[in-house]
Amino acid sequence: VGNTIAEASLPVMEGKAVLFKTLANIDAYPLCLKTKSSKEIVRTIEFLSPSFGAFNIEDIESPKCFQVMEELEKKDILAFHDDRQGAAIVALSGLINALKVVKKDLKKVKICLAGAGAAGYGTFKILKEAGVKNLIVLERKGIIHRNSKDKNKYFEEIAQATNPQNLKGGLKEAIRGADVFIGLTGKGGLLKSQDVSLMAKSPIIFALSNPIPEIFPQEIEKATKDYLYATGRSDFPNQINNAMVFPGVFKGMLEKRRRTTLKLEAKIARAVAVLVSKPSRKKILPQVFDKRLNKAIVRQF
Amino acid sequence: VGNTIAEASLPVMEGKAVLFKTLANIDAYPLCLKTKSSKEIVRTIEFLSPSFGAFNIEDIESPKCFQVMEELEKKDILAFHDDRQGAAIVALSGLINALKVVKKDLKKVKICLAGAGAAGYGTFKILKEAGVKNLIVLERKGIIHRNSKDKNKYFEEIAQATNPQNLKGGLKEAIRGADVFIGLTGKGGLLKSQDVSLMAKSPIIFALSNPIPEIFPQEIEKATKDYLYATGRSDFPNQINNAMVFPGVFKGMLEKRRRTTLKLEAKIARAVAVLVSKPSRKKILPQVFDKRLNKAIVRQF
Repeated sequence: VGNTIAEASLPVMEGKAVLFKTLANIDAYPLCLKTKSSKEIVRTIEFLSPSFGAFNIEDIESPKCFQVMEELEKKDILAFHDDRQGAAIVALSGLINALKVVKKDLKKVKICLAGAGAAGYGTFKILKEAGVKNLIVLERKGIIHRNSKDKNKYFEEIAQATNPQNLKGGLKEAIRGADVFIGLTGKGGLLKSQDVSLMAKSPIIFALSNPIPEIFPQEIEKATKDYLYATGRSDFPNQINNAMVFPGVFKGMLEKRRRTTLKLEAKIARAVAVLVSKPSRKKILPQVFDKRLNKAIVRQF
Repeated sequence: VGNTIAEASLPVMEGKAVLFKTLANIDAYPLCLKTKSSKEIVRTIEFLSPSFGAFNIEDIESPKCFQVMEELEKKDILAFHDDRQGAAIVALSGLINALKVVKKDLKKVKICLAGAGAAGYGTFKILKEAGVKNLIVLERKGIIHRNSKDKNKYFEEIAQATNPQNLKGGLKEAIRGADVFIGLTGKGGLLKSQDVSLMAKSPIIFALSNPIPEIFPQEIEKATKDYLYATGRSDFPNQINNAMVFPGVFKGMLEKRRRTTLKLEAKIARAVAVLVSKPSRKKILPQVFDKRLNKAIVRQF
């Protein structure tokens, strides 16, 4: 339930602990901290560090969550930021296979990434690492460009590394001619069929916000029948779900006593994608319960 | 392993978690905090409080541990200080039955309590609550009396509430004529047969420091054959072990959503003592695995 009160997020973290146990036989304990100060969060994790092998960081507001991860790395505490790193890895896995289906090249496509929070920033990082050249990132106020105001250092980094034509404007300007839309905005219904009709032929649309995605298929179909669609939901094909990735990542982290790097995360994304031997419009990713996942991920460490 | 480094105490806390599960079916998680600041300990527990029903506090140096407990009570966080409260309850339980064996009255005996740390202070409190009148408390520098120097507020409290004759001096002065010696000093071999020979007839000797008690039976027997002996060890009769008490106390705390009070702790001690229908020199307390313990304790809440 995101960055709300600690007690409210306990059931979600309990569920995550069950997934750790079920999917990777890792004993996890749900800790929901009654503080929103990044300094306090880091100190608490540091004090707790003798009792845990590694920490899965979730539901901390960005950019605070990035600062927390940076501090933990300085203190040599093993941690993984599922909202950022997990989301990014699985989005890239899905994209690799989606592009195979529509026969387009990752290095040549134009991608419109909406959302620059934890998952959006993480996805920006991994897409660049994977070799994406033409990437436009949208935040709430519009396209991130090199003259944007109100920047934090993470927006600044995005501004420098994306948007080769230095486009300005909003969703319409960003999505025009895009081969891929990746929505990580938290805003259900953001995308309309008119927006889809501005996209390139055979668009890939990852509407990843939960529980209401940025767009539903029936809205897309008003614009085109030739599309590939994925969401974070289990009631549509192509669920893009962190649970494919974090159990194996923790197995790797705990076994090899090392954190992930951006390079390793991109490798993991490719290893997950390869598990689907013949990707199709209805199946770009393995099942969450696919027993090959953990081994394939651990092998990358 | 007491107030050492956090990593070193992890196996002990893991063992305690196993006892929680085995003895009372309570799921416990061992948290060993990498800080010795009482303020930081309290903040960390506060931040963690949404994820736990109650906290068992252990191996924090006194008087810091008392401050921690006071702060947690102010914040309305359920906690139990096993080193202080657990040790005190089980010591009183044992004493109640030991006095039945030697046919002496709790309100009339003279007790020499050596040690004013967490367990010593806790035992002082519960003995006063139970009605002990003639109690002498020894700390490292000697008998606590009303003109002692270097006092903290806990020593001050002991000075005001014990030592009716305002005795001064050391172990010899404190133990002369005592019916009961309770050792919680951490100092193996503190007590010699000459000290025992200064005690009243049929002395009760609880040598509770671990792993080496304040005195062993063979040393006592140089002074008298008529004595009752208990330790914290499992290889002698009359083990005085917190594990008799804390699982039931947590069951009560979690079920009734209330912490213990001194009055409740004394009631629990009596309820545990009653489980031994015919106390003897070799058996003053129930077995740790006695299935009646938890029910008897929870009923007092």
